[in-house]
Amino acid sequence: MKKLGVVTSGGDAPGMNATIRAITRVAHSKGLEVFGFERGWEGLMKARVRPLTPRSVGGILGQGGTILYTARSPNFETEGGLEMASRTLKSNEIDGLIVIGGDGSFRGANKLSFKTDTLIVGIPASIDNDVFGTDETIGFDTAVNTAVTEIDKIRDTAISHDRIFIIEVMGKKRGFLALAGGIAAGAEVILIPEVKIRKQKIVQTIKENDAKGKKSSIIVAAEGIGDTRNLAKNIEKQTGSEVRLSVLGYAQRGGSPTARSRLLACLFGNKAVESVLNGQGSRIVGLKHGKIVTIDLEETCKIAKPLDLGQLELAHILAT
Amino acid sequence: MKKLGVVTSGGDAPGMNATIRAITRVAHSKGLEVFGFERGWEGLMKARVRPLTPRSVGGILGQGGTILYTARSPNFETEGGLEMASRTLKSNEIDGLIVIGGDGSFRGANKLSFKTDTLIVGIPASIDNDVFGTDETIGFDTAVNTAVTEIDKIRDTAISHDRIFIIEVMGKKRGFLALAGGIAAGAEVILIPEVKIRKQKIVQTIKENDAKGKKSSIIVAAEGIGDTRNLAKNIEKQTGSEVRLSVLGYAQRGGSPTARSRLLACLFGNKAVESVLNGQGSRIVGLKHGKIVTIDLEETCKIAKPLDLGQLELAHILAT
Amino acid sequence: MKKLGVVTSGGDAPGMNATIRAITRVAHSKGLEVFGFERGWEGLMKARVRPLTPRSVGGILGQGGTILYTARSPNFETEGGLEMASRTLKSNEIDGLIVIGGDGSFRGANKLSFKTDTLIVGIPASIDNDVFGTDETIGFDTAVNTAVTEIDKIRDTAISHDRIFIIEVMGKKRGFLALAGGIAAGAEVILIPEVKIRKQKIVQTIKENDAKGKKSSIIVAAEGIGDTRNLAKNIEKQTGSEVRLSVLGYAQRGGSPTARSRLLACLFGNKAVESVLNGQGSRIVGLKHGKIVTIDLEETCKIAKPLDLGQLELAHILAT
Amino acid sequence: MKKLGVVTSGGDAPGMNATIRAITRVAHSKGLEVFGFERGWEGLMKARVRPLTPRSVGGILGQGGTILYTARSPNFETEGGLEMASRTLKSNEIDGLIVIGGDGSFRGANKLSFKTDTLIVGIPASIDNDVFGTDETIGFDTAVNTAVTEIDKIRDTAISHDRIFIIEVMGKKRGFLALAGGIAAGAEVILIPEVKIRKQKIVQTIKENDAKGKKSSIIVAAEGIGDTRNLAKNIEKQTGSEVRLSVLGYAQRGGSPTARSRLLACLFGNKAVESVLNGQGSRIVGLKHGKIVTIDLEETCKIAKPLDLGQLELAHILAT
Repeated sequence: MKKLGVVTSGGDAPGMNATIRAITRVAHSKGLEVFGFERGWEGLMKARVRPLTPRSVGGILGQGGTILYTARSPNFETEGGLEMASRTLKSNEIDGLIVIGGDGSFRGANKLSFKTDTLIVGIPASIDNDVFGTDETIGFDTAVNTAVTEIDKIRDTAISHDRIFIIEVMGKKRGFLALAGGIAAGAEVILIPEVKIRKQKIVQTIKENDAKGKKSSIIVAAEGIGDTRNLAKNIEKQTGSEVRLSVLGYAQRGGSPTARSRLLACLFGNKAVESVLNGQGSRIVGLKHGKIVTIDLEETCKIAKPLDLGQLELAHILAT
Repeated sequence: MKKLGVVTSGGDAPGMNATIRAITRVAHSKGLEVFGFERGWEGLMKARVRPLTPRSVGGILGQGGTILYTARSPNFETEGGLEMASRTLKSNEIDGLIVIGGDGSFRGANKLSFKTDTLIVGIPASIDNDVFGTDETIGFDTAVNTAVTEIDKIRDTAISHDRIFIIEVMGKKRGFLALAGGIAAGAEVILIPEVKIRKQKIVQTIKENDAKGKKSSIIVAAEGIGDTRNLAKNIEKQTGSEVRLSVLGYAQRGGSPTARSRLLACLFGNKAVESVLNGQGSRIVGLKHGKIVTIDLEETCKIAKPLDLGQLELAHILAT
Repeated sequence: MKKLGVVTSGGDAPGMNATIRAITRVAHSKGLEVFGFERGWEGLMKARVRPLTPRSVGGILGQGGTILYTARSPNFETEGGLEMASRTLKSNEIDGLIVIGGDGSFRGANKLSFKTDTLIVGIPASIDNDVFGTDETIGFDTAVNTAVTEIDKIRDTAISHDRIFIIEVMGKKRGFLALAGGIAAGAEVILIPEVKIRKQKIVQTIKENDAKGKKSSIIVAAEGIGDTRNLAKNIEKQTGSEVRLSVLGYAQRGGSPTARSRLLACLFGNKAVESVLNGQGSRIVGLKHGKIVTIDLEETCKIAKPLDLGQLELAHILAT
Repeated sequence: MKKLGVVTSGGDAPGMNATIRAITRVAHSKGLEVFGFERGWEGLMKARVRPLTPRSVGGILGQGGTILYTARSPNFETEGGLEMASRTLKSNEIDGLIVIGGDGSFRGANKLSFKTDTLIVGIPASIDNDVFGTDETIGFDTAVNTAVTEIDKIRDTAISHDRIFIIEVMGKKRGFLALAGGIAAGAEVILIPEVKIRKQKIVQTIKENDAKGKKSSIIVAAEGIGDTRNLAKNIEKQTGSEVRLSVLGYAQRGGSPTARSRLLACLFGNKAVESVLNGQGSRIVGLKHGKIVTIDLEETCKIAKPLDLGQLELAHILAT
């Protein structure tokens, strides 16, 4: 085991840089050379690679984004794409490859693992927190805090104007961010793709709040629940209250990672290098039962991560 | 001069509460009683009023929104509306009324001033900074910082993905926020309602940046420039680069006011009380040539505030 | 089970208010009346009590500090003090008492539990994270982020001036905050009360960094490690570099709680009410193996919480 | 006019990097080459210089500190030091030198201006705001906001514990930061070097507050007012209340500059280049009466900047 490769893939997440730093410095302390492939799978296919050293990863711990750049590469998961990547790994004598990304990236990594002798280990970094096998992904805590900070600000206006606000947060398929952000911001209603709620129910909640003296309400909705613009119009019509929509956009992906996202980056990075050094490939690193563990790569690709619906009920009680 | 009324009107702005606190405490120190009218002109028309004391305005200095609530009241600027407001002022023996709001609120205040003996003084509080006679409105500095913080975060993703981002900030008619935010965030292109820029020019700038090695660009656009969604599609087609749109929404109105917005709130509040005590009504307070002054209320309603186009040129040079 | 008491005790922590809100609203939804005792044990001894309702705890979710006030009460742990508190509980017919605080508060709670029939349940809220039985206390995550934000700022100056900085964070007896904050901020040296490090070793690390091209270094030290002022002078003498000391003070206790501190507050509050309703007293709530659990109150008072020294080693590797 | 030099000197301030970027890009657009001297006057004396290009100053707009490093150089203001610097300017054919720093740096710059043909222009960047001729220095707004954010947090604890806090902010000789921060944070007492206040007066204010129901008070003190530790003990003894001291340290110098500090950096940088191109040396750039102007370098060194004592009175009224 001499050479370690690193790649960031898929949507960026705060803490990717902290992860690159951790991997590089831990691997270096174990006598490994480290190489970064640029722009996700693109860099593997086209052999865009540069050495990473303890000094070259200095100063990036607190930076959002990824110094290795990232991209979505639809061509990668073809025979040809995997073949090219496999050849790059071989010609560069990469013994282990650490893939920093989300569930999409891990599906690619899994396919690649069947085409190469290089050991592949994944590190979950995604604001969506939708990776099976880990309670938390790097960047999730940062995104939740970014969302809550924004929602707190919007509440100032909601209260001052007696208005209803629908705040759309990221999450095309899953509601982890909406649920955590909604509870932490005290949202009166939380809408997630996993649970259908009838419009009539939402309207009823708002009317009940109004009767209790809560003239403003915050509805936090994951983007995957459907057309929030229409929803806003609908609720406005049925409640008679002003309803405004605010879509929290790409800022949720950026910013300096929180302490927790950085800490996870350090611990996950360390564990991934350890896994490679132990000859354990086709794994991802995760936080499970409060411990840093590894789990099977293929398993994480196949199983959908469960969401704690009990928290949704609690959220409802807490916003009374 | 014994009784002073206060009202917040129009869109809320960070620092309105700090202004209410300043007015109340300064007025109290001069022996005045202070009364707050709730929900903008609505409160004046319907005589919804409550006393404000140095203690009751404690703890609000750093809070966004307005404890007096605010609203837009289309009925106010009718004969009947002004009449009702005038009667409320008379029956409550309000000698002076301080109106905290933006240019729309001042137009209403101006009309009211012809129907009442109560002295009326305006304090400009608006994230739009579009009030003639003052270099800065309360809340503007906060909104600019909120926008810049968001844009800084989005730049992380822009760079990591080699993407173009259009970031839409508030400003239906004026570009003060877009211009200041764009310069402070180092936007490659700034689009404001005051200056038409041809799409071809934007595309050219992006291509030049690309040639220079700047693979990502940030375009900051005031909402008043037109359909940003369409613009994004257009630029994507013509540059071949990925273009994403992020609309910075209502969070720009909220949040704890910055030190500068709070300081302006204190100084403006103090000056407004002084103006009323000196018997000078039909004025607004402002920052002019670095000093706190008052100017004619009618004048501020009639003249459009000029925007420094030199800064737009400078922005272009700075983003090279 | 009809009446529930709540008290915040010891040093304040961000998220105490979120906890009060969660307890009140969950308890109310189960048909309980809730009463808050003011100023810690003082309020129990002197029967300073006020009702808490879903509406009266509105708007406090994101506020630092505690609306119930808190204090240290040396008299409480005497026979007389416990007797007075016990009588207050009886005369107010309090069936269950939830104590929000740190390890000191739990020792008092434990003593009280032998003098009363009221069921007592503790909720760990402390920036020190030093409560046995829970992986994390409410407020810890906020304090770590506050510290990291400050350290990030100081690093700007450290780098610009080629200076060594010692940054003292809170933690009289334990190093949880220093350790987590130090790793997350990339500190070159972390000093905690649990592990003695010789000055010579620190000097050596700094000299090695200097040789590697790192002209500035950050030393994060828990306040419990001894006289940091002296340490600064010593290191300055031995390295010849400028050394500055910055003591991060009480700001570490305040501020709006992070999303995670708020979420813990909600989950812990909910669990504590559940425990009381199940007739289980003399427990504290905690996060263990990723789950919300309760553990024995007496046990938490007797056992010192272990600190993961492996993280200290990792920190050293990460800062190379 | 072909070659422009830039140097940052004295204590660092947020926005120095934004200034370097502005100078470099504006100068480049006018056909000038730009060179940065490293570590303040040290770099001029020892000819440590590197080229600055529009690309090499990319990405620094929002970064605290200075990429050119800074230092205090006692040797500079000797005959020998000035001679060395003058020779460096000559041998590098530097036509104009822009000095970014505070009043100490300008005194050095003024002395140097008599020993060289290079045109020298100063840009005030200092968290102290103590430069005559400009209403505001780059970095001041950021430092005030940093201080206010911290004080807001400490107030949470102050209120929860009914405590008095003395918060020491930077300012060895001048009270600009303490005054602005104190007003914006609603400090009950503000202590600055320019105005002696008797301890008895402070104690009286605290007692009056207590009588009014304000059980906690915040005293903001500039470091130059004397021994705050002693003051804390004294007030504790005389009021019988708990008094805590918190020294806001070096974090006040760092952090990402606010929008306003960045904007000033852009405008000042632009004006400084313009001044050099117009052949006007021995000037500093400033904000005066709301406009960007230049004033005489020697004048700024000789005259102490006045502080608006009316604001101190207002602060007292506002904190009632």
